[in-house]
Amino acid sequence: MKQIFVLFVVFFFILNVSAQKTLSLKDATLGSSSYLKPAMPEQLKWKDARHYVMIKNNNLFQYNAQAKDSVELFSLADLNMALKEKQIKEQDAFPRFSFINESQIWFQVDKHLVILNLENKSIVTYFTYAEDADLLDFCTGNSMLAYTIKNNLYITGTKGIQQITSDVDLHIINGAAVHRNEFGIEKGTFWSPSGNQLAFYHMDETMVGDYPLVDYMAREAKLVNVKYPMAGMTSHKVTLGIYNLATKQTVYMKTGGPDDHYLTNICWSPDGKSIFIQELNREQNHMKLNRYDASTGELIKTVFEEQDKRYVEPIHPILFSKNDPDKFYYQSRRDGWNHVYLYNTSGNQISQVTRGEWEVTRLLGFDTEEKFMYFEATMQSPIERNLYRINIHSGKTDKLSEEAGTHSGILSPGQQYLLDSWTSTDVPGQVDLVSTKDGHKQILYKAQNTLKDFELGENTVFTLKAADGITDLYCRMIKPNNFDASKKYPVIVYVYGGPHDQLVNKTWKNSARWWQYYMASKGYISFTLDNRGSENRGKAFEDIIHRQLGVVETDDQMKGIDYLKSLPYVDVNRIGVHGWSYGGFMTLNLKLKHPDIFKVAVAGGPVVDWSMYEVMYGERYMDTPEENPDGYKNANMLNYADKLQGKLLIIHGVQDQTVVMQQSIQFLKKCIDLDKQVDFFVYPTHEHNVRGNDRLHLMEKISNYFLDNL
Amino acid sequence: MKQIFVLFVVFFFILNVSAQKTLSLKDATLGSSSYLKPAMPEQLKWKDARHYVMIKNNNLFQYNAQAKDSVELFSLADLNMALKEKQIKEQDAFPRFSFINESQIWFQVDKHLVILNLENKSIVTYFTYAEDADLLDFCTGNSMLAYTIKNNLYITGTKGIQQITSDVDLHIINGAAVHRNEFGIEKGTFWSPSGNQLAFYHMDETMVGDYPLVDYMAREAKLVNVKYPMAGMTSHKVTLGIYNLATKQTVYMKTGGPDDHYLTNICWSPDGKSIFIQELNREQNHMKLNRYDASTGELIKTVFEEQDKRYVEPIHPILFSKNDPDKFYYQSRRDGWNHVYLYNTSGNQISQVTRGEWEVTRLLGFDTEEKFMYFEATMQSPIERNLYRINIHSGKTDKLSEEAGTHSGILSPGQQYLLDSWTSTDVPGQVDLVSTKDGHKQILYKAQNTLKDFELGENTVFTLKAADGITDLYCRMIKPNNFDASKKYPVIVYVYGGPHDQLVNKTWKNSARWWQYYMASKGYISFTLDNRGSENRGKAFEDIIHRQLGVVETDDQMKGIDYLKSLPYVDVNRIGVHGWSYGGFMTLNLKLKHPDIFKVAVAGGPVVDWSMYEVMYGERYMDTPEENPDGYKNANMLNYADKLQGKLLIIHGVQDQTVVMQQSIQFLKKCIDLDKQVDFFVYPTHEHNVRGNDRLHLMEKISNYFLDNL
Repeated sequence: MKQIFVLFVVFFFILNVSAQKTLSLKDATLGSSSYLKPAMPEQLKWKDARHYVMIKNNNLFQYNAQAKDSVELFSLADLNMALKEKQIKEQDAFPRFSFINESQIWFQVDKHLVILNLENKSIVTYFTYAEDADLLDFCTGNSMLAYTIKNNLYITGTKGIQQITSDVDLHIINGAAVHRNEFGIEKGTFWSPSGNQLAFYHMDETMVGDYPLVDYMAREAKLVNVKYPMAGMTSHKVTLGIYNLATKQTVYMKTGGPDDHYLTNICWSPDGKSIFIQELNREQNHMKLNRYDASTGELIKTVFEEQDKRYVEPIHPILFSKNDPDKFYYQSRRDGWNHVYLYNTSGNQISQVTRGEWEVTRLLGFDTEEKFMYFEATMQSPIERNLYRINIHSGKTDKLSEEAGTHSGILSPGQQYLLDSWTSTDVPGQVDLVSTKDGHKQILYKAQNTLKDFELGENTVFTLKAADGITDLYCRMIKPNNFDASKKYPVIVYVYGGPHDQLVNKTWKNSARWWQYYMASKGYISFTLDNRGSENRGKAFEDIIHRQLGVVETDDQMKGIDYLKSLPYVDVNRIGVHGWSYGGFMTLNLKLKHPDIFKVAVAGGPVVDWSMYEVMYGERYMDTPEENPDGYKNANMLNYADKLQGKLLIIHGVQDQTVVMQQSIQFLKKCIDLDKQVDFFVYPTHEHNVRGNDRLHLMEKISNYFLDNL
Repeated sequence: MKQIFVLFVVFFFILNVSAQKTLSLKDATLGSSSYLKPAMPEQLKWKDARHYVMIKNNNLFQYNAQAKDSVELFSLADLNMALKEKQIKEQDAFPRFSFINESQIWFQVDKHLVILNLENKSIVTYFTYAEDADLLDFCTGNSMLAYTIKNNLYITGTKGIQQITSDVDLHIINGAAVHRNEFGIEKGTFWSPSGNQLAFYHMDETMVGDYPLVDYMAREAKLVNVKYPMAGMTSHKVTLGIYNLATKQTVYMKTGGPDDHYLTNICWSPDGKSIFIQELNREQNHMKLNRYDASTGELIKTVFEEQDKRYVEPIHPILFSKNDPDKFYYQSRRDGWNHVYLYNTSGNQISQVTRGEWEVTRLLGFDTEEKFMYFEATMQSPIERNLYRINIHSGKTDKLSEEAGTHSGILSPGQQYLLDSWTSTDVPGQVDLVSTKDGHKQILYKAQNTLKDFELGENTVFTLKAADGITDLYCRMIKPNNFDASKKYPVIVYVYGGPHDQLVNKTWKNSARWWQYYMASKGYISFTLDNRGSENRGKAFEDIIHRQLGVVETDDQMKGIDYLKSLPYVDVNRIGVHGWSYGGFMTLNLKLKHPDIFKVAVAGGPVVDWSMYEVMYGERYMDTPEENPDGYKNANMLNYADKLQGKLLIIHGVQDQTVVMQQSIQFLKKCIDLDKQVDFFVYPTHEHNVRGNDRLHLMEKISNYFLDNL
């Protein structure tokens, strides 16, 4: 009996141990976005005021928000039967679709645009578009599709194709996003509300010098010229055309001004007669909201202007009231935080809708009367996103999401419900149905914890004071597996540090990169700090870096180092740093300005000298090299190469068009001139990030560099 | 007294130890070609039958070969006085000069061509040439200078400039060496004996695709297109023009044939009426010695032809007899070794002058009657060069150099003497005056042993059998400093292995790279073996690699490894390999075909896939990819990347136009695809070799890689 008991204990112990798996590098890099990614409902969206839908096992299911019952609305088999009838290729998976109304959806399959009636299960209409069509933009108002082929713009529908532009020079580009996707620009075509007109960006890059990239994978290396205007250099010229489908004429808005200003955040008036452009000067310190007559292109009015001594950064189009075509909502950081303002088209501010030392991060919608506005914001905490509604008149605000975490809402038609998809430190994913009336919550879905069988280092979030001694900075630390406070551990600082990004969030695992868990399993502490300059902390926090990139960010990061040095279990002689892009720049700043601290560094796709960076992002933060010579000099890592000590690996994608490889190459040359040893690796076919399966190779390269040298 | 004695001993011991310095990496890389290079006489040459000259302390001294007395012939002060008189910039050092006759020399200073009379110490004549003149070729017959500016050819003298070509397209190049300097081609202009005509190469590269190199050091990276025809691709077209200075007309030789044949080894007939071209077909297996009428360009005669089942490689122009303008000397490897043949212009072979299983490596000249021919050859040993004279009629051969080593001779006018400059294993440099009559030797100069104070590992040369079990291969081994046969040492194999090079020679230190001594001081054995395929061992030895590059060479290198493994003091688990160019290719062959043997490898500027190598060299050894698909496949290192284990560092010059960087880049991509870790470094401004001060950085990088990983 005793023996049997012992055996049982041993067996139990083995089971228990085998349950605690170690995260492999493949799990950490590829698994996190595929086989270990927590599954969430597919294509969750509202069909009507009371029903939401999602895809389950490739079939479309409808759920009743009140009655909580569900029904299979449309199967993949149904879909394929409908497609087959029109001789369109059958599908293996339910395509991504959108509702036109509660009975019709549209989707794209096999170069066909299809409108399908869910009720009678038949195709309402469909048409083919060109094999090489790109940048598709479907208008449900007129059932027509705008698209580009190479640099020209077309529209098509059931009645054939209209070619809108015919530019021969490939460096004149129509219908694509412009200004390198800065200023919130994500697309290049804008249908008017009724679909009778199509506004589109027209970008002339012919005056920008050719920048040579090389495709080394050809039998004979092949030149691929791109346009990459660098800070202070001649930039491209953008105009906005409006094509009238009835007259088949294009009118260009008479935006005037210097050629290199920025046309941002296009918005049609509700009647489709005028169009609004947030026009920003190249210096990026003066924005005009201009209204143009869509039929003549004439400037009707500068509705209002906004200026700032550092920079204005419009990133949200204005949003017209559904009730009053004379009113619109406008987002601005003019009071120091991103808030919503209500304006009329005369340019008078009616009210500031939201207010406070927190940021509106997304608008979700309004109720029909526009008494309430729904939004996501950082009101609760800068590292959370919660759902709120505000009474536009009284200012009374209700928090609609319950648990601390990062919530994302979808408002129902009729505004009775919010679908709240959220994660938190220990919640890999959950969907709640929230009643906007009383905040009553019903859990619809809980994602499986895909890491539950893995042994992971302890992950904590806390704050430290910035170098100003006042500001709280959020930090995340992951301790090694089987942490023993009496031992000494090496640390790898993972850094980004630039604007428009925040690495520490209350999401699942506090947004840790799983690579950090991997390194924790190898005995490394992972540390990350969001310094001043990073996002979601207000304007002053973010724009303090203006004209002096790398300075404040580095000072703040060093406060993290001070903290690490204060910990008895940190081996202060074994601190490393890694970052990519702005994080690569920061890695160089830290390594070169504090060579005594950082023994090993890996900088990926780093900016070395901002004068080799592009105009739009670069000049926002640094002005031009002519305007800010000292700033450029101080931020130029070539001027710190002489401080290099220890191990530094630089990695670059050969095809990088964001931070061009010459940045790294010039740094290597400087090191060679100074007889400083530096390491280098390239990913021949990758652009600014190493994506796909090759990411495993990349992370293995980075891991090995720390494992071998730190 | 006793105490004093002890002190003395200690002092002596310290002195002795400090005398044994260790070679620094700087000494080994930069010192070997500068501050530690053994000094040899400057500009040693014959003035006349009895007097030779050299520069000492910037003054020109004359020595009497018989009487052994010396006199300062011309001082730098004399020279500068003469220059000053003509308002030519005074010089800090005696310029490089050539004798026109025993009283006149010519030289170039400060864009002036100057003829100076040594006797009356005055300038005979001088003229200026253009600031951007390149490829200067001075003709003493007419005192005119041929030169190029960009792609065009000019001549000038005291009577002004004549522009010979006026091609606007920069890819039509006149007066430059062609065919990528293969086939012994070193220049592109050829003055007729009297100087009344100038033959020149005219190369049209317009049909060759542009190959993109990128200058990353510009503010904005700059494209630099070059012409790099790859194996099997369309190649350039070369013709030979002859410009007549009297008529000012150029006639092109009617060479006909396919455009991509090779026009090699140009030679004028002694009367200047015809010109001889060794024309080789693109397949490089059929050479025709063609004679053209210089005034009409018509083919007079194909004097003779030479074919070979592997390849014919003409690298020496024919050399006309001084006594009989109908006879010429011709060098060929047709009997398996490079020998000299006497022909008449009808194409009849009069005699084979030299014969035997050794190679004539250089012709030095003939006596006036052409009874004797003087030459350098490998007759004594393939790793020595000795001086010989042969009785052309009887074949009787005399060895004129005494000590085993590598000798280089300068025959005096009148052929009474040879100046013999030589080195040997323990002789850093020596000049002897040798009587051609009786071989009597007089030592003129002994270079200082610049390494005498350094502690160096033992350096031995020996032979091993090749993989065929028959052929002797020469090897060099350097043992670590303070070698102890009871210990185990790691080994670094340094390899080249390709044709036209030999690494083991009886020169000073047996041609060891001093870096090998440096690594020996760090405890590494250095080993080098000249496999089959390397030069100076006869045709069969060298051309066995034809159509199968990397195969035999690797098999032979592995015989070296077998030997190393047999040594009790070799640590067989710590063997590394390093090589550059063909040696980079060999490094990859060894590392990838024998991953269990080579723990660490550093391949510099490696050929990875011969289909990415250029036409002239590539097709000689491999034919075209179409003709030899299996050969290309077997020699393609991309097909062995899956075998990669351990550490491999690849280094490439970004500006490499010999082995283009895409070779390395494609190998990286293959490794990434296979998830194999590989290391990489680039030298941004360097071409095929890293030269100048940056070489120290390079060798430090390579050294560290072995020190860290082997």
